[in-house]
Amino acid sequence: MADVAGRDGLKWAQVAAGVIPAWVADMDFPPPEAVREAVLRRVDTDLGYPGWLDDSTVGPLAEAFAERMESRYDFRPDPGLVRSFTNLNQILQIVLHLMTEPGDSVLVHTPTYNAFLDTLRAMDRRPVPLELIADGETWHFERPADAGGAKVLLLVNPHNPTGHCFTRADLQDLAELAERHDMIVIADEVHADLAFAPDAHISFGTLLPHRTITITSASKAFNMGGVHCAVAHLGHPGVRAALQAQPPHLYGAASVLAVEATVAAWRHGDAWLAEVMAILDRNRKLIAKRIPPHVRYQIPAATYLGWLDFGIPNAAEHLESRAGVRLNPGPIFGAPDGFARLNFGTSGPILEEMLTKISAAVPSP
Amino acid sequence: MADVAGRDGLKWAQVAAGVIPAWVADMDFPPPEAVREAVLRRVDTDLGYPGWLDDSTVGPLAEAFAERMESRYDFRPDPGLVRSFTNLNQILQIVLHLMTEPGDSVLVHTPTYNAFLDTLRAMDRRPVPLELIADGETWHFERPADAGGAKVLLLVNPHNPTGHCFTRADLQDLAELAERHDMIVIADEVHADLAFAPDAHISFGTLLPHRTITITSASKAFNMGGVHCAVAHLGHPGVRAALQAQPPHLYGAASVLAVEATVAAWRHGDAWLAEVMAILDRNRKLIAKRIPPHVRYQIPAATYLGWLDFGIPNAAEHLESRAGVRLNPGPIFGAPDGFARLNFGTSGPILEEMLTKISAAVPSP
Ligand SMILES: Cc1ncc(COP(=O)(O)O)c(C=O)c1O
Ligand SMILES: Cc1ncc(COP(=O)(O)O)c(C=O)c1O
Repeated sequence: MADVAGRDGLKWAQVAAGVIPAWVADMDFPPPEAVREAVLRRVDTDLGYPGWLDDSTVGPLAEAFAERMESRYDFRPDPGLVRSFTNLNQILQIVLHLMTEPGDSVLVHTPTYNAFLDTLRAMDRRPVPLELIADGETWHFERPADAGGAKVLLLVNPHNPTGHCFTRADLQDLAELAERHDMIVIADEVHADLAFAPDAHISFGTLLPHRTITITSASKAFNMGGVHCAVAHLGHPGVRAALQAQPPHLYGAASVLAVEATVAAWRHGDAWLAEVMAILDRNRKLIAKRIPPHVRYQIPAATYLGWLDFGIPNAAEHLESRAGVRLNPGPIFGAPDGFARLNFGTSGPILEEMLTKISAAVPSP
Repeated sequence: MADVAGRDGLKWAQVAAGVIPAWVADMDFPPPEAVREAVLRRVDTDLGYPGWLDDSTVGPLAEAFAERMESRYDFRPDPGLVRSFTNLNQILQIVLHLMTEPGDSVLVHTPTYNAFLDTLRAMDRRPVPLELIADGETWHFERPADAGGAKVLLLVNPHNPTGHCFTRADLQDLAELAERHDMIVIADEVHADLAFAPDAHISFGTLLPHRTITITSASKAFNMGGVHCAVAHLGHPGVRAALQAQPPHLYGAASVLAVEATVAAWRHGDAWLAEVMAILDRNRKLIAKRIPPHVRYQIPAATYLGWLDFGIPNAAEHLESRAGVRLNPGPIFGAPDGFARLNFGTSGPILEEMLTKISAAVPSP
């Protein structure tokens, strides 16, 4: 555990001594060296207003994003349609705030990333669920029969908490639906770089560019959730116009430090990412080997998040008190309390220890 | 000029080769060592979600702000009323957006910080000016006869571009007016730490706490305009309630790097600040000595900004083309084009060179 001793963020700070945190989606790895260098270079040259201050696309950021989306996902964003924000939860709230009304419906896959459910609740938007179907070796989701009156499709792909990578057929269905019902698609692709080959991320912007607000950041793949620099590609002209009509500084601006860290991660972080993906790949398979057989688990196609059905009441609470491991409880994602989300973005030995403790604490059926 | 060779922000990037920049309000000094250390420590420990993620007051930031305001300015903010944003222009726009309508009036001292004038224009709020009076040795401003229908007083104290520190009598007049007309006071005190003794900054929160939104950051005094972490003390309950009613992440969140840089500057930057203030103090006096006598200049009581009346048409343009020094033109602050703002936040030798060039290029009367 020596390598995590210095970590002082939310993940490690909020657990009692002796409890291993496998909850909030931060990994236990230091960021790429290129990020460290970029931040340090910025501090050592100039922390004043950056050259891109009056450029709404935040020049280098838009370019790094566009290059990455094209080279990895064959999606060609128009750098001129990129806007920068601080984080993805902000962008979701802005789009919902500008484009929908309280009481409006939003189509989402369920279980759903907990912070997004919180947003729907806080903003009084009604989730129209597309339920998860556990079917032999893979998860998949209900095909949408119709949009249930929703104006917005909130697509999290790769999906949190299941790690599902939506297939082209899945996405085509969703695209047709969005087109038929004149919907705005918010495509959260923040976990895209965490897809394990041969599974592959398909960017929704390649299917329906003029309806899609693609949102992402380097925060998940490069483990810098506190850095707060996120981008939105405003493919949907209505969203673009609504944003354009707002006061220009209303939604703030990312720090130069955050922009440089993000550009460095995207441009120079891939060797680091490959190493991390190798660890995560071993980890996701280790869970399948070591978890008791009656606990239902599908090896995720992406992310460092495992979605587990322990089949016991209040699984997460039970595991924190009996195993000394904190997972996220299913209900915060809109799932039954037998489910819990396990963050395996840590070293092999720590995961081994967690799995040993969890296995000992899970009652036999 | 060797010490500025590495600077690559807006200030140096946007001038032609050979032109010395004395425009945008960034200084030419590296930030305090404590800022560098804090940023580096953050990169080297944990860039994930910070422990204060769900604390709307951004724990350490609110405390560092409150301690500083109390120890330096005898204003005791309630840390529970502190909210964090990315920058001051954002906060101004949020308050105007939530509390006023297009067509509403805002009372401001004129000349006015150019970005705030831009905001009033972009948001269709009408400035009600309180004009600058040049009177022998000091500037002062018109006493407000009435509020001209304004709902908001936008007080920039210390004042940009004149460097005026408002006196207690000035502020008492404004406070009475605000009270009589039920106004919201936005008190921008970002230049407070740049007041030269024996002149002193008086924080408006000490006069009228329940009407005042005090806004500040470390960006000006500690020369980190790109870092983007600003605080607002929400003394006015109406503003507090209006903000509380918004979606919780709508206005984004400062980067952990920016928060740590700001806390470090406020807690450990004062030795650095004292050195910088000594340079700025020599500089503000040097201008008085070296500028041609018919150019009107009052040594500013605060800031690294000199407000000069050259008494020639298009002074800034003339000086950029003839002297090779870029100042900010008076008209962007709402002043006649014979005025220009000179940023003297640079080393003595660079200022000497600028003044020599300016003096040679200003025609005798
Ligand atoms: C699906 C998804 N979107 C977004 C985020 C991050 O949001 P933010 O950028 O607001 O921190 C996460 C973090 O775990 C996530 O899982
Ligand atoms: C009076 C005043 N307020 C605010 C700012 C900074 O605004 P922001 O925090 O939006 O960069 C400046 C910068 O020069 C200023 O002079």
